[in-house]
Amino acid sequence: MSRRIVGPEIEGLIQLLSKLPGLGPRSARRAVLHLIKNRARLLDPLASAIEDVRRTVTVCSVCGNIDTADPCVICSDPRRDRSLICVVEEVSDLWALERAGATTGLYHVLGGVMSAIEGIGPDELSIDQLIHRCAEPGVKEVILAVNATVDGQTTAYYITERLRGLDVTVTRLAHGVPVGGELDYLDEGTLTAAVKSRRTF
Amino acid sequence: MSRRIVGPEIEGLIQLLSKLPGLGPRSARRAVLHLIKNRARLLDPLASAIEDVRRTVTVCSVCGNIDTADPCVICSDPRRDRSLICVVEEVSDLWALERAGATTGLYHVLGGVMSAIEGIGPDELSIDQLIHRCAEPGVKEVILAVNATVDGQTTAYYITERLRGLDVTVTRLAHGVPVGGELDYLDEGTLTAAVKSRRTF
Repeated sequence: MSRRIVGPEIEGLIQLLSKLPGLGPRSARRAVLHLIKNRARLLDPLASAIEDVRRTVTVCSVCGNIDTADPCVICSDPRRDRSLICVVEEVSDLWALERAGATTGLYHVLGGVMSAIEGIGPDELSIDQLIHRCAEPGVKEVILAVNATVDGQTTAYYITERLRGLDVTVTRLAHGVPVGGELDYLDEGTLTAAVKSRRTF
Repeated sequence: MSRRIVGPEIEGLIQLLSKLPGLGPRSARRAVLHLIKNRARLLDPLASAIEDVRRTVTVCSVCGNIDTADPCVICSDPRRDRSLICVVEEVSDLWALERAGATTGLYHVLGGVMSAIEGIGPDELSIDQLIHRCAEPGVKEVILAVNATVDGQTTAYYITERLRGLDVTVTRLAHGVPVGGELDYLDEGTLTAAVKSRRTF
């Protein structure tokens, strides 16, 4: 904005909101106007919701999940299968698997993947903690639910090597056709993997 | 979410953010994770930015603009042309015109338009205040920059009637081809208006 239209407080809020994923300067401005126009219903509750999160949010010291309790609700849930640890790159992956109800076990958030380009080695990730958890009695399987990228697969191979010698089975997610997906739109690698892993009908 | 993945504080923030225009439940969840992961750079500044806005934001008692001062920066700017009042429906329209630098005059925010369906009459809008402002000496022109909708045009006609007898010229925005727009994609009404209002080249 060449001319100053609004006070610096409003402008500051617009600029902060525009840094959120999915919001640009234009939508941030609309969001701020919407907040101000719905003060009692949105702006005031948002202020206290953010305060609540700041006060309570923490990282689970066991699995790396983000929650308001440590250990997190998943790690402290007695109904969870403690013999199974699902390894993911980010908390968002954990939440996605959890929304799907895809596993009844525990999780381990790596905090990223190894990357030669970005200079991220195994020490930057929580791999030592993972090995430590897997060495405890009772852990039988580790699912490497990392992304199917080069860095993700490199990290998966590294972890597999580190787990060698421990009494755990290491598995990875199946490749195949997404449920509801159309063959037409899939890449050749996925199609080849789907045919190779075909099942009897 | 069928199972409770995160604490109620985080869930509450996700739900509030998903009510903002442009954000759904999915992007709100991504935004909250992004905020938590960038605590010092985003979450803490956002908390104080929202507090600042709550403390300072106000509605200009002259024109209805949202700002942190009353009268707002525009109304209190001595370089503004006080003989010209540009009437808009919403604060977002004011900000859009102001970003474009389209007028050097003052504004008047109606707070909506008259609508038979939604039961909004002239008393729900700041039309009386507008007539009062226009009756003051020095005001020469009123630009009715309302939307080209049925309700917008009804409101414009109503305001024009109310201004009859006062010594002000009432104008409206020109219809025509948007700058950079392609004729192919324009509706017939716009094309007819653009031809009717053609200028010598």
